[in-house]
Amino acid sequence: MSSMNKLSATIRSFHSSAARFKKNVEFTAVRYPYLKRGNYSFLSDRHLGFFQSILTPHQVLTDEFNDLSGYNVDWMHSVRGSSRLVLRPKTTEEVGAILQYCNAQNIAVCPQGGNTGLVGGSVPVFDEVIMSLGLMDAVISVDELSGIAIVQAGCVLEKLETILHLNNLTLPLDLGAKGSCQIGGNVATNAGGIRLLRYGNLHGSVLGLTAVLANGQIMDCLSTNKKDNTGYDLKQLFIGSEGTLGVVTQVALHCPSKPTSVQVGFFGINSFDNVLETLRLSKQNLGEILSSCELIDASSLECVTSQLKLKSPVNHFPFYILLETSGSNADHDAEKLNSLLEMLLKNGTIVDGTIAVDSTQATNLWALRERIAEALASEGYVYKYDVSVPIRQFYQLVDVMRARLENLPIRCCGYGHLGDGNLHLNITSQEYSSELLNKIEPFVYDWVSRQRGSVSAEHGLGLKKRDYIEYTKSPTSVHWMRRMKKLFDPNNILNPYKIFPGTLNE
Amino acid sequence: MSSMNKLSATIRSFHSSAARFKKNVEFTAVRYPYLKRGNYSFLSDRHLGFFQSILTPHQVLTDEFNDLSGYNVDWMHSVRGSSRLVLRPKTTEEVGAILQYCNAQNIAVCPQGGNTGLVGGSVPVFDEVIMSLGLMDAVISVDELSGIAIVQAGCVLEKLETILHLNNLTLPLDLGAKGSCQIGGNVATNAGGIRLLRYGNLHGSVLGLTAVLANGQIMDCLSTNKKDNTGYDLKQLFIGSEGTLGVVTQVALHCPSKPTSVQVGFFGINSFDNVLETLRLSKQNLGEILSSCELIDASSLECVTSQLKLKSPVNHFPFYILLETSGSNADHDAEKLNSLLEMLLKNGTIVDGTIAVDSTQATNLWALRERIAEALASEGYVYKYDVSVPIRQFYQLVDVMRARLENLPIRCCGYGHLGDGNLHLNITSQEYSSELLNKIEPFVYDWVSRQRGSVSAEHGLGLKKRDYIEYTKSPTSVHWMRRMKKLFDPNNILNPYKIFPGTLNE
Repeated sequence: MSSMNKLSATIRSFHSSAARFKKNVEFTAVRYPYLKRGNYSFLSDRHLGFFQSILTPHQVLTDEFNDLSGYNVDWMHSVRGSSRLVLRPKTTEEVGAILQYCNAQNIAVCPQGGNTGLVGGSVPVFDEVIMSLGLMDAVISVDELSGIAIVQAGCVLEKLETILHLNNLTLPLDLGAKGSCQIGGNVATNAGGIRLLRYGNLHGSVLGLTAVLANGQIMDCLSTNKKDNTGYDLKQLFIGSEGTLGVVTQVALHCPSKPTSVQVGFFGINSFDNVLETLRLSKQNLGEILSSCELIDASSLECVTSQLKLKSPVNHFPFYILLETSGSNADHDAEKLNSLLEMLLKNGTIVDGTIAVDSTQATNLWALRERIAEALASEGYVYKYDVSVPIRQFYQLVDVMRARLENLPIRCCGYGHLGDGNLHLNITSQEYSSELLNKIEPFVYDWVSRQRGSVSAEHGLGLKKRDYIEYTKSPTSVHWMRRMKKLFDPNNILNPYKIFPGTLNE
Repeated sequence: MSSMNKLSATIRSFHSSAARFKKNVEFTAVRYPYLKRGNYSFLSDRHLGFFQSILTPHQVLTDEFNDLSGYNVDWMHSVRGSSRLVLRPKTTEEVGAILQYCNAQNIAVCPQGGNTGLVGGSVPVFDEVIMSLGLMDAVISVDELSGIAIVQAGCVLEKLETILHLNNLTLPLDLGAKGSCQIGGNVATNAGGIRLLRYGNLHGSVLGLTAVLANGQIMDCLSTNKKDNTGYDLKQLFIGSEGTLGVVTQVALHCPSKPTSVQVGFFGINSFDNVLETLRLSKQNLGEILSSCELIDASSLECVTSQLKLKSPVNHFPFYILLETSGSNADHDAEKLNSLLEMLLKNGTIVDGTIAVDSTQATNLWALRERIAEALASEGYVYKYDVSVPIRQFYQLVDVMRARLENLPIRCCGYGHLGDGNLHLNITSQEYSSELLNKIEPFVYDWVSRQRGSVSAEHGLGLKKRDYIEYTKSPTSVHWMRRMKKLFDPNNILNPYKIFPGTLNE
């Protein structure tokens, strides 16, 4: 999708020129003054000497102005650490040696993949040593017959996808950031994206992984077996734990057959009840070929068309649905989608709709969904919320926030992965306003909590959302998460300040 | 499938008449004399008094001859405990109260679902108190639109399936034992079955669960969100941990739309290379509608047809493949399967094949696969192995074992879930022979280990396979599993003697 490539290009351009932004991005320690540096060692020449003794010069970056800026700042320029050292291991064993030393020396470590996260999880908060997995980017093996790919953690998602396509396979996940994000980071954050409806999440797709624990121990869970019921499924611990329990260095992924037919439909709908009916009938009639069901509200569409000069083939509705099918027989898929469209038009569930006749049109339709974030950003400051809510309450939160915020923001809109119950609520204002923020938070989390939703559907908690964990998880659950963290990383050297509010002793 | 119902009926008939087998089944403690009872309290009148004070008489079973036999013995009559007490809680809170007391009093507990396991995991080894979940059998809610079902752990799988079908949904798993097995037990053992190829395993399908920890604490992870990245995904710990980390009491399950079209094909194939080519072309051409790809070797087919007087429409081949498709459009699915059959016949990948024209034929074809276990059992003693192996080595193990065992057994055959790399290796002899066993084990585990396979693909470790865990998992992994066990159950009261060899202190 060109829209995705656009986002990837944005992220890449950030990475290559991050140095120039450096001075503009406030240090996290300044912006969040209540954060206190842990009692870790400060980096010494002796420490540096050790790292230089086990790694090549190319793998040890220390130039604050040229080398480190891109690693210390996130791509949204919203958080900034002050690390003085980036280590770039090439093997699992090097990761092990680094962590063993850091654990013994009480040095905090921030593991980093493609640094495309949205919650400040992949950059240091203070002066944590950054461990970048970017040099571990090999695709070790791809097997078409079994659909199994084994890959190093630092492999960029798009690179893996290209190789999979050559083998008639595809990735079970797809993200806007695929040109920059790395599979290890995807696994560590349980990345979601637009194919989750079809292929499920990474807890199902990851067959195995290698992780290095805080003490440097290598945990070999690199199974390629689709079925393996022999003891606890330890790999699951590392999926979505945001680098706080171990560093993922290799991944075995189950990859589905590449669909030979992809179709996109775009519908205008008069009410949210009919949005739900469209979803229901789509699931029933498209069944196994339904691969995306995305909602766009009128305000989101207005923003993306006006700000980015994109054209929508369907207009003047409160809601729009983008449907994608992926299948193995173009004729069958077209027949299914066309008869669905006919049925929806005939029974009045949708009022207007179009189906892309070629891949250019499909790409243009996807752009109306994928470029909303970019369009919103051009309006000024964006308050972004990525929440899961029960499907019938999917849009209520947008209505509730509009009523609450009245004329304070420029815009309050909602879009997202309807089929997965994952709403992106976005509120824009000309510039950051604490008055507006205080009207939104914690109200929004409280509302989601009352619906038993999730305050972070796919972005994770990182630094920015850690204080809201108990809005989604019970105190007992959080208590046991802390105990797990203490078990696996008793000195708390792995990605400190992330996921858990306060300190680990609270 | 009638074949499944047959198995279920077998299991049910066992449960209702288990008492009469009691005397014939050797006590586990006698058969495995190296097992030593842990230093747990012996059940006293005081303990019993406590349980009677918090439960109704109906929930506390103590009659050794009438009540307990079915709970103390597995359905294969291969293990037998000597528990004097079965507790049948009705609520999560009752489970909590029972475990809190047992933990405080140092009483060992064996959680039990439908007791349909194959590795001795669900019956006591010594006198552990049995906690049966059977009275917690409510289907709490089913929502067609979101595909989410919330159900108590003791609900029998078939009952849930019936209710799902009324809501145009289906289960993401299907087992021969579905008439007896319970969803809580399925989750606790990460049950696989014949739909895994299509819908993935329970790590992906379970959205949430409630578990009670060894200390009685209730862990509420009963999320119904498809996406929820807020801290560690604790529910994963309980999936497949065989009741050793906590007792699952409620499950939220993501259920796919019920397919409206199911088709079954049965092919005769001349070589294993062509078996693999059939799998490859089936994945490519059936794509999203492929729901099962099962292998049956000549010896397995010969056994099921001769022992059970079943007729096969295709005969005299070394290999047979049963393919199933599940989809939303019968015409499309038939066209896909027919053109695959044509292609396979034309290019010589298969030599003969048939497609069921109605559900009776489909059921008859499935019986050739599903009733193999029953047919083998009628030959005498069966040495059963359920292993995962890389797809290209799928059948090698059968050849290797045949060469190794020569004329010792009656039969050495292989069948199973080809599409998932899951082989059922079965060896029969007139009666149990330690000479034969010693020729098979540990050789078979060693062979699987060298292929980086799994010594238990879907059956789990339980008691019978616990000694082989390190054939599949690294010492580091097992070490950390033991640490997790100690963290969650420091007194080791939950399902002791299972999963881990030796004692937990080793």
